[in-house]
Amino acid sequence: MQVKTTTQAIRPDTSEEKPVSPTTTPHVVIIGAGFGGLEAAKSLDKHPVQVTIIDRHNHHVFQPMLYQVATAGLSPADIAAPVRHIFKKQKNVAVLMAEVTGIDVQEQRVHLREDDQTVPYDYLIVATGATNNYFEHEEWQHFAPGLKSLNDALDIRSRVLLAFEAAERESDAEKRQALLTFVLVGGGPTGVELAGALADLVRNAFAGDFRHIQPQSARIILVQGPARVLPHFPAAIARKVQRHLAQMGVELRTGVHVTAIDEGGVQIGKDRVETRNVIWTAGVKASPAGQWLNAPVDHDGRVKVQRDLTVPGHDTIFVIGDTALVTQKGKHLPGVAPVAIQEGRYAASVIADRVAGKAHPRPFRYFDKGTLATVGRAFGVVNMGPLRFTGTLAWFTWLFVHLLFLIGLPKRLQVFLQYAWTYLSFQKGDRIVLPEGTSPPVL
Amino acid sequence: MQVKTTTQAIRPDTSEEKPVSPTTTPHVVIIGAGFGGLEAAKSLDKHPVQVTIIDRHNHHVFQPMLYQVATAGLSPADIAAPVRHIFKKQKNVAVLMAEVTGIDVQEQRVHLREDDQTVPYDYLIVATGATNNYFEHEEWQHFAPGLKSLNDALDIRSRVLLAFEAAERESDAEKRQALLTFVLVGGGPTGVELAGALADLVRNAFAGDFRHIQPQSARIILVQGPARVLPHFPAAIARKVQRHLAQMGVELRTGVHVTAIDEGGVQIGKDRVETRNVIWTAGVKASPAGQWLNAPVDHDGRVKVQRDLTVPGHDTIFVIGDTALVTQKGKHLPGVAPVAIQEGRYAASVIADRVAGKAHPRPFRYFDKGTLATVGRAFGVVNMGPLRFTGTLAWFTWLFVHLLFLIGLPKRLQVFLQYAWTYLSFQKGDRIVLPEGTSPPVL
Repeated sequence: MQVKTTTQAIRPDTSEEKPVSPTTTPHVVIIGAGFGGLEAAKSLDKHPVQVTIIDRHNHHVFQPMLYQVATAGLSPADIAAPVRHIFKKQKNVAVLMAEVTGIDVQEQRVHLREDDQTVPYDYLIVATGATNNYFEHEEWQHFAPGLKSLNDALDIRSRVLLAFEAAERESDAEKRQALLTFVLVGGGPTGVELAGALADLVRNAFAGDFRHIQPQSARIILVQGPARVLPHFPAAIARKVQRHLAQMGVELRTGVHVTAIDEGGVQIGKDRVETRNVIWTAGVKASPAGQWLNAPVDHDGRVKVQRDLTVPGHDTIFVIGDTALVTQKGKHLPGVAPVAIQEGRYAASVIADRVAGKAHPRPFRYFDKGTLATVGRAFGVVNMGPLRFTGTLAWFTWLFVHLLFLIGLPKRLQVFLQYAWTYLSFQKGDRIVLPEGTSPPVL
Repeated sequence: MQVKTTTQAIRPDTSEEKPVSPTTTPHVVIIGAGFGGLEAAKSLDKHPVQVTIIDRHNHHVFQPMLYQVATAGLSPADIAAPVRHIFKKQKNVAVLMAEVTGIDVQEQRVHLREDDQTVPYDYLIVATGATNNYFEHEEWQHFAPGLKSLNDALDIRSRVLLAFEAAERESDAEKRQALLTFVLVGGGPTGVELAGALADLVRNAFAGDFRHIQPQSARIILVQGPARVLPHFPAAIARKVQRHLAQMGVELRTGVHVTAIDEGGVQIGKDRVETRNVIWTAGVKASPAGQWLNAPVDHDGRVKVQRDLTVPGHDTIFVIGDTALVTQKGKHLPGVAPVAIQEGRYAASVIADRVAGKAHPRPFRYFDKGTLATVGRAFGVVNMGPLRFTGTLAWFTWLFVHLLFLIGLPKRLQVFLQYAWTYLSFQKGDRIVLPEGTSPPVL
């Protein structure tokens, strides 16, 4: 194992000589500043290691609330925080904003796109998340954006707001209806939450703003291949959610698949629906980390890790979060924040024990605290062990738990106020469409 | 004069027949939803006219606080509001999000880029504002963005934040220094406010966030051609501002001009300064409305309007705000919000009087209420008639007056809280860099 001095280990090091001394500190490199990566870095506080987090964005995103940015309820900065600011006080963490292009497992180095730099590691935690999965129909991506990043959320928001602007200008009734038809492909939590928030936007926030169209006449269609939405929730809860969605005016199409998407519309089973607005909420696939590591993966690209979350044959490389395939009690763990957080904490504890010379025999075990979701304004879903309920109280539970986890106190307070305002006023706070960037980025 | 029925007048009308009846309502078209355009539309409330505001953005921007977005203090939605939402309750106003490409003064129609549509008018108010003026050096625009729109502000913010990220990765000392050098060209209010906010960002908000660079070692250079900053303010105030800027670590270069800008640096008089960050705050020129109207303009493209703000030869076309050249007591009125607002109100009153069959003999007269500015955190400048002071009290005056004018109550409260937090914590709330848009816009 290569061991480096602290400063050399953090600053991407291009020297050929690698001095080893008794005072050197092991260097832990974490790729990805999502929930798993952040938790791993935090858990290594006070341990005698140097940590470098690499992410291609300068910010961590609170992904469970991305749909709020997509539907103009919140601003990007409300649900994101600069990664280096999060670790301001944890002095053994350095943050690099850079794009990883590969991993050299022989040399133990992470390759960056920027200036062909490399970063050496003693331990590596790969927490690179997931991207949208179009199931061999990559050509659909152009017409049906997914919702995985802040950029995705702003793209969807811009499309939704501009569709209403174009409809207000449009004199042809058919074209106007196509502009006011929204099809969401996929009825998991993202599809359900987005459909609810979209219905809330067009029925409440837009009321009275237009002169030629009735925004509440917009059609919102949620397509779900399986027989019901939220397949991972109990059937009774899913039924209540479906009833609530219908009350909000969302058209549900369950047990049917989307077979074609083009710029004019979408084919839902035997029906063709004319629409300019398709949003992809159907599924994700893992980041390409499995290829970087040349590791065994499943059909969604998730790395088949061992019981201690390391990659077979590489006991210093951990894969966590949406990029890892972990099986427990015969089931694959879902790609949700609590799984990533617990895996990040576990990987950090294994590394801390090894650095301290202690054994770490206990394999990873996920403790499921339950699931929460919202459907539009003031209707929530709680599924936590024996606690299973829906409605306003469930919405407040959701709100409380999510605010509790939002990173950074000032924004948490602000988001709470924004929420309170949204709730009281039926308004949406960030309906700003920014034009596509015209000037080139500096880097 | 063409007269139309209400509904035809708002919806871009392509019919050839133009029915005239005694019950028709005059159609006032306002191009531009800046301060002047908004005020004109608001002033036409309760009058027997139909108003259509056309803007290529869906939002009004509170331009005096753009520098706060550029320096990560505020989010775009904090200083912007959807135009149609502002007029939600004023039912004689319709809003069109569209780009104007020309004006046919014979046919009395405004031409839009979208679907080659046209909008007929009976009265026209042109309030299309100003853009950056590179004084015959358009090639500098690429290296030195200006600050006129939300997009400009996000571009500058992204460049500033990414420069620090790149410096943190950079091992070459000279390149690092170039990344950490910021040159602002132009010492008017925008240059001074931006320099102060930038100094505040790097000295306070970044403290402790980096491991390899000292953000407070960043150089901020403010270049001003005339002998002192803020030439339109009294000399005593400008001196105090210069002293305060120097205390904040801003290097002032007055009485010297920038003669070259390229990707590696900038030529300031006889000095070459290596920098990757040049920001243009030197001047503006009017929008091309003068060309559309084939009207007499000055060297900055401003339309030489008559004493009632109409264009010579067209008594139904008004030009207001930064696009108009208005002379009073031998001086040109400056391109600031109060001038545009008073001009918008005046143009509306002339139209209202004419529609009511009344004469409107009084020419436009600007009432100067004074000027406010800020320099970084908690230092303001007040220049209002006999009231001339600088410091913390002036900063609170600035804050109070600006919050008073921010449109939309919820955001005003939020911005106040954000400000209070910035003041108390030395933090900046929106340090999120968004990548350049990758998916095409829907329109």
